[in-house]
Amino acid sequence: MSLFSKIFILISLLMLLNIIELASTEQKYSLETRYIEVPLDHFATYTSPKFFKLRYLINSKYHVRGGPVFVYTGNNGDISIFAQNTGFMFDIAPVFNALLVFIEHRYYGQSLPFGNASFSTPENLRHLTSTQALADYAYVIDYLTRSFYENVMTHDTHPIVAFGGSYGGMLSAWLRMKYPYLVVGAISSSAPMFYFPGMTNCDLFYDKVTQVFEKFGHDQCVKTIKLGWDVIINLSKTKLGMDFISTTWKLCGRLKGAEDIETLLNWLSKVYVNMALANYHYPTDFYTPLPAYPVKAFCDKLTTSYFNDTKGLIEHFSHALEIYTNYTGKRVCNNINSTYDDYTEFAYEYQQCTELIQPKCSTDADMFITKPWDFEKYAMECYKKFGVRTLPPDWGRIAYGGKNLRYYSNMVFSNGIMDPYSCGGVTGNMSATVWAFNISDAPQHIDLRNSDVVDNNYVLGARSFHINAIKQWLNMA
Amino acid sequence: MSLFSKIFILISLLMLLNIIELASTEQKYSLETRYIEVPLDHFATYTSPKFFKLRYLINSKYHVRGGPVFVYTGNNGDISIFAQNTGFMFDIAPVFNALLVFIEHRYYGQSLPFGNASFSTPENLRHLTSTQALADYAYVIDYLTRSFYENVMTHDTHPIVAFGGSYGGMLSAWLRMKYPYLVVGAISSSAPMFYFPGMTNCDLFYDKVTQVFEKFGHDQCVKTIKLGWDVIINLSKTKLGMDFISTTWKLCGRLKGAEDIETLLNWLSKVYVNMALANYHYPTDFYTPLPAYPVKAFCDKLTTSYFNDTKGLIEHFSHALEIYTNYTGKRVCNNINSTYDDYTEFAYEYQQCTELIQPKCSTDADMFITKPWDFEKYAMECYKKFGVRTLPPDWGRIAYGGKNLRYYSNMVFSNGIMDPYSCGGVTGNMSATVWAFNISDAPQHIDLRNSDVVDNNYVLGARSFHINAIKQWLNMA
Repeated sequence: MSLFSKIFILISLLMLLNIIELASTEQKYSLETRYIEVPLDHFATYTSPKFFKLRYLINSKYHVRGGPVFVYTGNNGDISIFAQNTGFMFDIAPVFNALLVFIEHRYYGQSLPFGNASFSTPENLRHLTSTQALADYAYVIDYLTRSFYENVMTHDTHPIVAFGGSYGGMLSAWLRMKYPYLVVGAISSSAPMFYFPGMTNCDLFYDKVTQVFEKFGHDQCVKTIKLGWDVIINLSKTKLGMDFISTTWKLCGRLKGAEDIETLLNWLSKVYVNMALANYHYPTDFYTPLPAYPVKAFCDKLTTSYFNDTKGLIEHFSHALEIYTNYTGKRVCNNINSTYDDYTEFAYEYQQCTELIQPKCSTDADMFITKPWDFEKYAMECYKKFGVRTLPPDWGRIAYGGKNLRYYSNMVFSNGIMDPYSCGGVTGNMSATVWAFNISDAPQHIDLRNSDVVDNNYVLGARSFHINAIKQWLNMA
Repeated sequence: MSLFSKIFILISLLMLLNIIELASTEQKYSLETRYIEVPLDHFATYTSPKFFKLRYLINSKYHVRGGPVFVYTGNNGDISIFAQNTGFMFDIAPVFNALLVFIEHRYYGQSLPFGNASFSTPENLRHLTSTQALADYAYVIDYLTRSFYENVMTHDTHPIVAFGGSYGGMLSAWLRMKYPYLVVGAISSSAPMFYFPGMTNCDLFYDKVTQVFEKFGHDQCVKTIKLGWDVIINLSKTKLGMDFISTTWKLCGRLKGAEDIETLLNWLSKVYVNMALANYHYPTDFYTPLPAYPVKAFCDKLTTSYFNDTKGLIEHFSHALEIYTNYTGKRVCNNINSTYDDYTEFAYEYQQCTELIQPKCSTDADMFITKPWDFEKYAMECYKKFGVRTLPPDWGRIAYGGKNLRYYSNMVFSNGIMDPYSCGGVTGNMSATVWAFNISDAPQHIDLRNSDVVDNNYVLGARSFHINAIKQWLNMA
């Protein structure tokens, strides 16, 4: 049985047993769900071309005929989650009389080209690439313009503005760059546009995560996290120690050896990273339900000095980790093989193994276990895991222009300065119409979230910047 | 045996027997031949990605370090033929200290992904699409910039200007549109940018061909050509008649029935079209060796009135056709299954069946047999011939923006007003930096040919326009 089949069966089983908690995003915004048949491969010819159902969501509540279309270019996940977490588009829709459209990225959510078998073989995964996804968006927008308006939409009649956060932010910018006739401008939030091999130093990401813990946690937090790695590794040398961790941390399976420990350490890294990514100033339900400032909440549970009490440290970590793993108190056990609880992580890791190669390394200076960046090793692990070769590491740069964004126009790149991915973001203006806006203290794409009474002036400033940019693009300024 | 295999064996056999004359283009310009391994599929992931050898030609005679790179985006044919017929680039290279590069289009010339088997199955032909070809060009240019200059080339250091004629002109413009960071501007000559379904009326093409024969032939020529169709159809009703045509026109095979007659009529149409396309004011060797103004030369052989002498008409046509079929006097017989004498036509018909769908119909007003445009029928014939389905007819428009070229920049579209494809060309300015230049009386992409003492002021004007545009793009103006 292939690794794919095993993973598939495992996930199916866990979902069936309700052990994996399904995302239970609050439905703040009402959206109509639609589907459209799109070609699996836009760039090749076939005897029998395969089409599949792509999902998109529409809200026309604020739309007035002649108003623009705001399109969210879906990223790695269920589009409804992104729609519910992109309140900014709903907040400003009435100002612009805009139609809102959220298009799902192929191989995520309900847009699975081969249904549940989409992830079962390398052949079925073949067409999970950004270029194909961009063509999907162009295809859907073109269809919409013809069906909704009974004519071909242009900038002049029904201009389209693209929005996106994180990988979705890259896609919104790339859509503007590759289909400028279709999209008048792009609001690209927290998009690691320059996070490709040879373009961003590998140590910057974990360094930024560490900065988040230093800034939002207390003095001892980073020190305790660093200590934690050694404690885990030492305890794991005996069966007793592994059992102790397994029980205390409520792992779904017991730790049995070196491979499990490696998985545990990687899982822990990801939890830290995700807390930094979702370190919003109010509770959110994006990756998983989290309190306000999860990094602070996590660190607040690690206040004692544990230098002579390794088991005490593991116990305290257990409570601290529940901030991330079980904030709702409903989780039965922690599955260290997944941090997202569905296919999403599998699909995105696949993309990071093939196209979105973001070199990461940790050094003595950060709070992670020291690990160099080794492309050959990375590619080999990807091959073992997914059975595919990474695309030539230069392709992202060749396809999307690398750092040469000054040759494009009408894009805003916003970055939360406390977003770890801002290390690969566009943080300076590139041309007279390609702008950067940096949001002090903020995590990723907070500017795309709905307005909130506790929003600070930095966030309000970013949103105001976006509104003015859009007005310029729509000739309303 | 599949149709593919049959065609392959037939062509191989004919080449072996030297019945098909190989292109014997005069080598005016010296070029170094190079090869580079490019991915067969730039937009998908593979367990073992396939690469193949793409050919490109380089001339560095006029190049001074720091000078720009002029790239010809190869179209449907052997790149060396296009290189030898694009003297304009050689003529202006010294003015700009430019490096000249001619990149071959995949599936043409020597750039065959599966060698001689490239055309043997629909699977092998799968990746013959314009989007893949554009990615090849970006890939080669990126490689060149890194190897030739040991750094990443940008507009600021070593700007790249794209050139192309006809389909190659579409590619040069699309390269600028899709990779503007890579290419500072495009000289797109005689490119039928708007020749897609729903964008250009189907009757304009044959109408333009007819205009060429009316303008360059004499009064009776079009009338005689029209009469010719009826004479052929009537004669073909008997075996005797078919034999007479077969012998008189030196066909390689004897006409045997309705299907052969259909092929003959299509072949004759293509001969007329190609003469109009290559109706230059001096002898050329582009499609095939031709005299100056082949349309005039052809018509000059059809001066008698044949209304009561059908056999005489066929005989006179025989002499007239030799202008196209046997100008060098070396041809043994005429193969009506091919007008190009190699794989080129097969590959390009495939592209016209899948992606480059250019609706053509003839009416009473033109000199061709009346034939409506019927997409369903066209698609069905393509399926019978190549075993593939045409891409949705909207894809060309969605991918490349249809008529919305005003949202792009730095392109010159030149058209010979007497080029039949000018009916689908960009003949008016689209924006402040997307210009059209119309060349009176001229056939296709004469502006890209080398300067000649007999060039008229229209052609000289077009070349001067190009030079000034390039100077502006390079900040030399």
